[in-house]
Amino acid sequence: MTLGHPAYQQIRMHGLGDVLREHCRSRPAMTAVVDGEFRLTWPQLNQRVNQLANYLLANGLAEDGRVLWLGQNSFRLLECMLAAAKIGATVCPINWRMSAGEVAAVIDDFTPQLVVWQQQDLADTANQARDHAKHRAHWIAHDGDDADSYEALLSLHSATDPDLAVHSDTPVVAMYTAAFDGKPNAALLSQSAMLYQSLMIAYGYSITEQSSNLNSGPLFHLGTMLATLATFTFGGKNVFIARVDAEEMLKLIEAEAVTHAFVAQPTLLQIREINKAGKYDTSSLWSSPEAPEWSSPLCMPKDSPFAQQARVYGQTEVMGFTTFGFLGGGGAGRVSPLAQLRIVDNDGNELPPGESGEIEVRGIQVMSGYYQRDDENERRNHNGWHRTRDLGKRLDDGSVAFVGPKTTMIKSGVENIYPAEVEACIAQHNAVAQACVIGVPDPKWEQNVKALVVLKPGEDLSAEALIEHCRQHMASYKKPKIVEFVTELPRAPDGQLDRKKADAMFGGGGYPATH
Amino acid sequence: MTLGHPAYQQIRMHGLGDVLREHCRSRPAMTAVVDGEFRLTWPQLNQRVNQLANYLLANGLAEDGRVLWLGQNSFRLLECMLAAAKIGATVCPINWRMSAGEVAAVIDDFTPQLVVWQQQDLADTANQARDHAKHRAHWIAHDGDDADSYEALLSLHSATDPDLAVHSDTPVVAMYTAAFDGKPNAALLSQSAMLYQSLMIAYGYSITEQSSNLNSGPLFHLGTMLATLATFTFGGKNVFIARVDAEEMLKLIEAEAVTHAFVAQPTLLQIREINKAGKYDTSSLWSSPEAPEWSSPLCMPKDSPFAQQARVYGQTEVMGFTTFGFLGGGGAGRVSPLAQLRIVDNDGNELPPGESGEIEVRGIQVMSGYYQRDDENERRNHNGWHRTRDLGKRLDDGSVAFVGPKTTMIKSGVENIYPAEVEACIAQHNAVAQACVIGVPDPKWEQNVKALVVLKPGEDLSAEALIEHCRQHMASYKKPKIVEFVTELPRAPDGQLDRKKADAMFGGGGYPATH
Repeated sequence: MTLGHPAYQQIRMHGLGDVLREHCRSRPAMTAVVDGEFRLTWPQLNQRVNQLANYLLANGLAEDGRVLWLGQNSFRLLECMLAAAKIGATVCPINWRMSAGEVAAVIDDFTPQLVVWQQQDLADTANQARDHAKHRAHWIAHDGDDADSYEALLSLHSATDPDLAVHSDTPVVAMYTAAFDGKPNAALLSQSAMLYQSLMIAYGYSITEQSSNLNSGPLFHLGTMLATLATFTFGGKNVFIARVDAEEMLKLIEAEAVTHAFVAQPTLLQIREINKAGKYDTSSLWSSPEAPEWSSPLCMPKDSPFAQQARVYGQTEVMGFTTFGFLGGGGAGRVSPLAQLRIVDNDGNELPPGESGEIEVRGIQVMSGYYQRDDENERRNHNGWHRTRDLGKRLDDGSVAFVGPKTTMIKSGVENIYPAEVEACIAQHNAVAQACVIGVPDPKWEQNVKALVVLKPGEDLSAEALIEHCRQHMASYKKPKIVEFVTELPRAPDGQLDRKKADAMFGGGGYPATH
Repeated sequence: MTLGHPAYQQIRMHGLGDVLREHCRSRPAMTAVVDGEFRLTWPQLNQRVNQLANYLLANGLAEDGRVLWLGQNSFRLLECMLAAAKIGATVCPINWRMSAGEVAAVIDDFTPQLVVWQQQDLADTANQARDHAKHRAHWIAHDGDDADSYEALLSLHSATDPDLAVHSDTPVVAMYTAAFDGKPNAALLSQSAMLYQSLMIAYGYSITEQSSNLNSGPLFHLGTMLATLATFTFGGKNVFIARVDAEEMLKLIEAEAVTHAFVAQPTLLQIREINKAGKYDTSSLWSSPEAPEWSSPLCMPKDSPFAQQARVYGQTEVMGFTTFGFLGGGGAGRVSPLAQLRIVDNDGNELPPGESGEIEVRGIQVMSGYYQRDDENERRNHNGWHRTRDLGKRLDDGSVAFVGPKTTMIKSGVENIYPAEVEACIAQHNAVAQACVIGVPDPKWEQNVKALVVLKPGEDLSAEALIEHCRQHMASYKKPKIVEFVTELPRAPDGQLDRKKADAMFGGGGYPATH
């Protein structure tokens, strides 16, 4: 039977460019994108995408074409992705908050033929990065007005669809993600992973062609881009705002009847303050910003499955989310029908429920590997499973709980001890407010487990009592040998525990990873 | 960039067998299937599927394995499909109402190595078909109790997962469908088409792991099997009943808290009659069988998108449905994100909205071709598009309207005239109740358009007035030259217009198809 008739293998090819093509037929008068003065129907968007695709083709960016997006949120990033989808190229949207040196390092790693950059707000970063980078690319400003700017170049090229056959497994987006060895890696995300994940997201977020999605979170993060892609896939309207601006967001929520948006807690507080007299009508998104449906920065209709159960586990490498609370169970929910997930010990054996080990994932939603990281790709492949480098466990009901990053690990004798697991155990003690576990050097054991503990106001607890609590609740080798009570733990600007700083401040020896 | 790192191409492989494997981890204690005395959890189902897969492998049914299912609805058909998915084989569920001669013809065409048949109700058909068929297969009874029966053979084989790498584009089901040239063809449906279509069905039918799907429609029809597959994919419970039985269905609706079912109109009337005193609690499926949510034999939660808009277009060859009312627009709704659809004239040119032509579809949800029909597969491939042999048009809003089967066509001079289109025009006249259009032989024009018309009670209309009505509303060459007023039109037992009989009764010359 093999894979069926060869003609039908061609007929079944289907990517993001094809979704756009069909939108032109199915939704000829509906709005695809809104961004400042731009307001494009699906055929208008498609024509611009074709112009860009033809520009890229004319400049040799076909199958191995690489475009770097150094800009804030814009409909032009979506255009770049769709043009790349039509010709088999790849777009890398990078974090525009990075320093010029970091941007230059990404440019030298990704070696794009083309950089699409932004003059507004980012001219200094861009100019310095271009100077620092060894790799030479062609740079065009997406918001420029000279002869070599995005709009000027588009206008020179044909709006005829290049109509190339592109395999749906071709990577279309490269997204830089966690640096395990100090060097960030670009996860390659294929059109098929994006398309099928969009079906899951539309299911969970209740996205339809009537949806109006405000792109108010950073699009260089998959957590934000997932809603953009699902809205695109189901023919809804994507509304873009360059960066977070509470008053501007309120205007757009009212004007575009926004149904989906990313609103982080600080922005929400600003929105409440600005809108306390009800200046703007936000009823398309929330009955009121004080309303009880608030449980996640991902705002969506309150009767949607995700709004009911906003628990997830995932990482960029598995297309954002691979478990969902709305699929059932406790913890981070159950695994998507687009993936398999298993928990393994350090010998690679699958573990029973309740035991913590590395989370491994396989399935159509997994990335296509890191760009130009053959060694790391081999290391991360465990007999056909992607090693996430995250630690998790199955609950008894089959759902998955995330425990912590596996690379944050203490070595004690032959044992690997994961601080996140020990911290979770300590936090169960009634007297404890916060905890951080580090490994302090030991001549015999390599490291000993040390707990830094902040007690709740008015509570009293001895080190011995806390160690005994741990001994009772987990394997003895994991319990802290040393407990230091502190008044506060060092935190990063975003409020997250700063482990490296805690390690340095309290005599730690770093968090080594074995593999 | 090609398709990413080779290791990750393996990691991304994902089929129906993988979905089952993950259900065992994610839903270890939940019920997968219910059928008579059988009630299996996901791990129990998986073990039986492994036993069956190992039996098939031991008998040489790996990649080119073909299994014919000659039985009524049973969880064992799902087991056969899942075992086939795990080893790359293909299962063909055939219409058990066919005559022994028809079954024998299918056996000689599909040439299965194995026939899984049913003793109960189907012994005569099976025995005669086995005698008539030239092709020799191994026959096992799924409900038998001898040493060569399904259960006996399962018990002899290991429950260890064969754990083979199977490409997700491998056909897993073959479904015989419309005979354009008098010979039915088996559409090959791949695992990927089934899986991604299941995501669309789950979205439209509001299927979750809490769903309880009563398999009360025939599983040899895709319209029924779609709900089975989506329920399977999302980890819900599939409840099987061998064939339609109103009282038995009522018992199951109550006992299994059924949320999804196929209930045809005659069965519904029986259910209303049996349950008029409220003997059975049907509240999981309907507030009452009289309730207003009734608009389709596909029963599901009334707030699900499909229940709100139960309009579709599709065919077996495109995995059942490819447009959905719940995706927006009028007519049969807009096209799924898993496909593209276009309307073309007889020269293959895409037509503008409002004009009728052949519907062509491409995308991941299309079949992998007909089994062993190279010539027909070539004919049905139009530059990478599947010719549906159906006639449709775009409405102005971009949605798709089905007009009629293209193969029912009248030839007049150089023109092809589609009866369905002319009938729709005639039916717009206020005085008309029903119409059937045939082609009567003409020495000069080959055929002339003749309309058979049933008027509404008390209405009067001349042939001239009706012809003028048609002339005003469509291209003149399509209007009827002859009108015959009749009191009734011949109908098939299922109530559908019997075109062949009408053609024969009223002087027609058949409905030739040009290609």
